[in-house]
Amino acid sequence: MTQFINDRDALVTEAVSGLLRSSNGRLARLDGFPHIKVVVRNDWDRSKVALVSGGGSGHEPAHAGFVGRGMLTAAVCGDVFASPSVDAVLAGILAVTGKAGCLLIVKNYTGDRLNFGLAAERARAFGLKVSMVIVDDDVALPDLPQPRGVAGTLFVHKIAGALAEAGADLDTVTAAARRVIDGAISIGMSLDTCTVPGSPKENRIARGKAELGLGIHGEAGVEQVDFEGARHAMSMVVDRLKPAMAEGAHVALVNNLGGATLLEMLVLTEELARSPIGARITHVVGPASMMTSLDMQGFSVSLLPLTEADRQALAAPVEIAAWPGLSDFREGIVLPVPDGLMPIQPTPSANPQRRDLVKRCCEILIAEEAALNALDAKSGDGDTGSTLATASRALVAAIDRLPLADLTQLYRAIGMELSQTMGGSSGVLLAIFFAAAGDASAGGKSWIEALDEGLKRVQQVGGARAGDRTMIDALAPALAALPKGVKAAAEAARKGADHTATMQRARAGRSAYVNADKLLGHNDPGAEAIARLFEKL
Amino acid sequence: MTQFINDRDALVTEAVSGLLRSSNGRLARLDGFPHIKVVVRNDWDRSKVALVSGGGSGHEPAHAGFVGRGMLTAAVCGDVFASPSVDAVLAGILAVTGKAGCLLIVKNYTGDRLNFGLAAERARAFGLKVSMVIVDDDVALPDLPQPRGVAGTLFVHKIAGALAEAGADLDTVTAAARRVIDGAISIGMSLDTCTVPGSPKENRIARGKAELGLGIHGEAGVEQVDFEGARHAMSMVVDRLKPAMAEGAHVALVNNLGGATLLEMLVLTEELARSPIGARITHVVGPASMMTSLDMQGFSVSLLPLTEADRQALAAPVEIAAWPGLSDFREGIVLPVPDGLMPIQPTPSANPQRRDLVKRCCEILIAEEAALNALDAKSGDGDTGSTLATASRALVAAIDRLPLADLTQLYRAIGMELSQTMGGSSGVLLAIFFAAAGDASAGGKSWIEALDEGLKRVQQVGGARAGDRTMIDALAPALAALPKGVKAAAEAARKGADHTATMQRARAGRSAYVNADKLLGHNDPGAEAIARLFEKL
Repeated sequence: MTQFINDRDALVTEAVSGLLRSSNGRLARLDGFPHIKVVVRNDWDRSKVALVSGGGSGHEPAHAGFVGRGMLTAAVCGDVFASPSVDAVLAGILAVTGKAGCLLIVKNYTGDRLNFGLAAERARAFGLKVSMVIVDDDVALPDLPQPRGVAGTLFVHKIAGALAEAGADLDTVTAAARRVIDGAISIGMSLDTCTVPGSPKENRIARGKAELGLGIHGEAGVEQVDFEGARHAMSMVVDRLKPAMAEGAHVALVNNLGGATLLEMLVLTEELARSPIGARITHVVGPASMMTSLDMQGFSVSLLPLTEADRQALAAPVEIAAWPGLSDFREGIVLPVPDGLMPIQPTPSANPQRRDLVKRCCEILIAEEAALNALDAKSGDGDTGSTLATASRALVAAIDRLPLADLTQLYRAIGMELSQTMGGSSGVLLAIFFAAAGDASAGGKSWIEALDEGLKRVQQVGGARAGDRTMIDALAPALAALPKGVKAAAEAARKGADHTATMQRARAGRSAYVNADKLLGHNDPGAEAIARLFEKL
Repeated sequence: MTQFINDRDALVTEAVSGLLRSSNGRLARLDGFPHIKVVVRNDWDRSKVALVSGGGSGHEPAHAGFVGRGMLTAAVCGDVFASPSVDAVLAGILAVTGKAGCLLIVKNYTGDRLNFGLAAERARAFGLKVSMVIVDDDVALPDLPQPRGVAGTLFVHKIAGALAEAGADLDTVTAAARRVIDGAISIGMSLDTCTVPGSPKENRIARGKAELGLGIHGEAGVEQVDFEGARHAMSMVVDRLKPAMAEGAHVALVNNLGGATLLEMLVLTEELARSPIGARITHVVGPASMMTSLDMQGFSVSLLPLTEADRQALAAPVEIAAWPGLSDFREGIVLPVPDGLMPIQPTPSANPQRRDLVKRCCEILIAEEAALNALDAKSGDGDTGSTLATASRALVAAIDRLPLADLTQLYRAIGMELSQTMGGSSGVLLAIFFAAAGDASAGGKSWIEALDEGLKRVQQVGGARAGDRTMIDALAPALAALPKGVKAAAEAARKGADHTATMQRARAGRSAYVNADKLLGHNDPGAEAIARLFEKL
């Protein structure tokens, strides 16, 4: 088995149960599993025209997913790709049809036509008003006398549904459905076949090929074409639709046949807009999975000439999660990038003492480059020393551009400098450290408290805590001891750094992926750098 | 290329364009393609706390699909499975953050943490209030210090979003987000790997195996397990979730990782309900694709202990198509099957003349069985004679149960009898013919007019017209001539039947799939049956 099902025979009844269970009480079903699989609105009082659709399963969310106020009143579900029985359809009709009557919306497949057709006759024998429309929107073969019904069916569900909900009589709803069917055209394209539950997958479409003009039951498309990307694919679809289009504005329904990603569907939607018919499409439904063919990696485009009445019917709100709503179809709004992406350039200022301190720190780290690299080589890729030295050299070079007289701005400027010159995660983390220290300083904290705040932020963002075998194992005790003087800080840093050699597992940072036997006995190079920095100070 | 994209580098920008275009004007983006891919609400006035999320693309509809009133204010999109840059995140923050501040909702991946973290610092340097939460809901490895952020992120988006929309301040929104993160747990399972655009697909999961505890970037699951169907799959997922659950009622988020069909997702949802933790789940979000891993054929289940406040926040309506809404989680309502599925049994009545006519018609068709089979064998499967004869024999056997004195009921009863005894499409069509004739007779039509109505209905349901090489080519002219007598009808039927031998192509029914050279020169067997019936009468 290659699908999340239990067994093929119970597939549809279990899925219907799952649908009801997640429908917030809006859906019910008729008794009679497994033979009768009919999903109905749970809030239906038969006061208006009922809309019944259905057919084989495998097209989810169609049809049961579109049952709800403003769309279908009932959906009659067959097994996968198999028409429901006459009895099942009749049960659906009888369950929902009141004096206002019932419209059957049937896709043009022989089994569905016959079974819905006979069920309609049997319902009429009970004195019910039943009309039936047959959707045949597929334009894959333009001269076919019996075009298939595919995703254009959704236009019928929604427009007839809105009219019925508004209280229109059966003749009006039926006439509207017929008019929509006359106007709706659809065509599909796929890169792969679908996987029918319980059957081996047919690998009919070779890599680099696509099928154009396929149905929704795994049947082959009318032609196999070379596949050259989304733009070309949409251009072939548009070439088939264009000759069948009416004058004026259209609404497009962009349907995922099941297995295309939303990324792909959005790219295709954009290509539809950029196509030769894009300017004639004023509104869109989707992209979304509406009338699928199981897991088929394909899409279909349906078009309908758009009157104002139909636009209103398509836009009428419904509480049906599967209906993506009607959107206008126009290029997205582009807002200017906000000011502030360019870093604030600090005004340089002088403070010889701080200048010396910064410079001294940098020189220490530059001097330790080789030693730290060697240490890092034992557990990592041997560049900790170089990373720190490179950033230090850049800081030294920039030292007279720094706002040395303003501690808040100095912290921020160092953070900015490091974020631009120091690669990798450690550069980002040190940038965060100094930026956060600047924030804290701006908030009135002392210079040591500010560094403490920086450490906290680094821990939050980086996720490392004491004991995780990172730079923090030296930095945290050093900062904690710093109020007692640099010497105390150096001792604390050394103790913390040496302790890292006893840690069997790194729990954050790159060393987390290194085995314990490579770690034990060596200090973490980041922690060691901190220790040496404070020691040399 | 095996996907509907144009090129990998432009994939996300094109998809964002498609998203905006189908957003009904509700979304905008910041300038700065391709580096800056930030989707923002188009109706945002900065008066409330802004919610910014994002990360690598490939998880659609997350995150841009959840931008809208009541959820995210902005989504910062990276390339597929790649964290967005610090500049891009900063642009997003600056674009939407007002005095009320901004909450960053970040999934727990190093790149995202660092880049969102540094962007937050840079935004704070502008005096903006920015807080950040890190979602780590994955329980695949219970002792992992850095659990990944997966679909539980949606709980954070929705609950924090509802609070922010209601006007809560940044501290309140942040605290709620942290609380949700503390409570949310998730685990995923997949039957297949995902297809990363531009990369060959890794076929890591053998047929018959599944991966449990996988992330959303194609990384391997924590273990490969035997796959034994939906029930067993869900039981393994539940086994991992159960030890991590809190007391009391929970809401489940049932997430499609991208490539599972809705049928599968509904079956899995039902299995979740039937699992040992099913009774503790009072509400559900989905099943739906929310946090996907491209086209991965998998699912994830996220759980959150449900307080009344969180329930209200999750239920708060949003105009975001990708959000499936909150549903209670209880077994579906089952309504009784309506009365009327058992056919109305007509009261037998006598009319010797009609009895003789019906019997005579049946005897004629029984006598022609072999001849009609032979004719059918030339273009079909040679059973037209047997099909008609079998039904005729059944009708003869039932003749004294028929309501012979009431024409309306007689037509209906014959239709019912044929629908039960005559196989295939032709049985259904003849049943429709007589049932519709009964309807017309009930409506006051004469017996010939009633048959005309039956013919019309058959043509509507069956889709065949005159000239399509079917039984209709004889029946239609025969009924048209019938007012002039049976002889005229017989001549018209014969002429029509013989004309079918000149038709090069069948346009309806089974013969539509037969080549012209097999059809030419032979009468259609259905039409021939009608001609012989009238001739023998």
